[in-house]
Amino acid sequence: MERVVESRVLHRGKFLEFRIDTVERLDGSRHTRDIAGHPGAVAVVALDAAGRVALVRQWRLPADAALLEIPAGGLDVADDGAKEDPDLAARRELEEETGLRAATWRKLGTFYTAPGFTDELMHLYLATDLSAVVEGRLGPDADEALILSWLPWREAVAAAERGEIRDAKSIVGLFWLARLRSDGVR
Amino acid sequence: MERVVESRVLHRGKFLEFRIDTVERLDGSRHTRDIAGHPGAVAVVALDAAGRVALVRQWRLPADAALLEIPAGGLDVADDGAKEDPDLAARRELEEETGLRAATWRKLGTFYTAPGFTDELMHLYLATDLSAVVEGRLGPDADEALILSWLPWREAVAAAERGEIRDAKSIVGLFWLARLRSDGVR
Repeated sequence: MERVVESRVLHRGKFLEFRIDTVERLDGSRHTRDIAGHPGAVAVVALDAAGRVALVRQWRLPADAALLEIPAGGLDVADDGAKEDPDLAARRELEEETGLRAATWRKLGTFYTAPGFTDELMHLYLATDLSAVVEGRLGPDADEALILSWLPWREAVAAAERGEIRDAKSIVGLFWLARLRSDGVR
Repeated sequence: MERVVESRVLHRGKFLEFRIDTVERLDGSRHTRDIAGHPGAVAVVALDAAGRVALVRQWRLPADAALLEIPAGGLDVADDGAKEDPDLAARRELEEETGLRAATWRKLGTFYTAPGFTDELMHLYLATDLSAVVEGRLGPDADEALILSWLPWREAVAAAERGEIRDAKSIVGLFWLARLRSDGVR
């Protein structure tokens, strides 16, 4: 167990807070931890009636590539520091990134993306009974440039296994869907 | 596509580099990106002859909890900036964190843990034909305090589905193993 005894914030950005925490252990020893503070995020496996999942291709600077991912995004944070409800954020992100709404929502799980250095908690959902938002436009966030595509879910899972879908939340989401869809596994 | 035109490093730690990159798009617009630079990491699904997987429980400050995870760790970086080979790092981390060696290694996949803000690339392995290192001690890294435990792989997968194993690399690793073990899925 570690207790934070000092926290030095180096930078507060739109989503990230770069900080160096000093922790004290039960034995009294002190250590520093570099932490990328994050408000949390949502990711959505959107499955249509034909068994296809919605995927978005987006430029990811850290990967220096356009990655194929499930729709996702960070929780909004209000001026008073209050975080957006993940259930609402999932609906907002799905609509913003794909122009879709879903009548049926199921929370699959919640996990840390990289618990060694960030508190980003990812809330993962399955969205079904999809419909297009008539007045919607793709990518209203001017800072995002997304391309929507659809893949039969088995092909998407295979793409993850081949390394063509290569971010953690998307792989977790697709494998989770595969487990739900394949009675033989459970 | 985005091209980095300026990179301002705020902090260089043991693993992380906090920086603010300025990028230019094809349309000439400029944007800033907060990036947590990371050398990359390895994670190991270690499966014994009885069908049990090795799990380590470790305090994770960002989660403010001791998380149950598969053995993992960052790539070492030499003074000249050269990164450790992931194949070797996987062997080193497995031995350091569990006191185990494996005669058979298989690379399962490579993925970004959180490509929105970090370039951490996770190299995932399956290790089998395990043996204990006689002279080994657990957690030689004085900065780590690990508790090793073993779970039948189906129970570990179920623990992930129940939210008891809740970090991305571990869920990906366990679900990947489940897919390999369950012919019905493929």
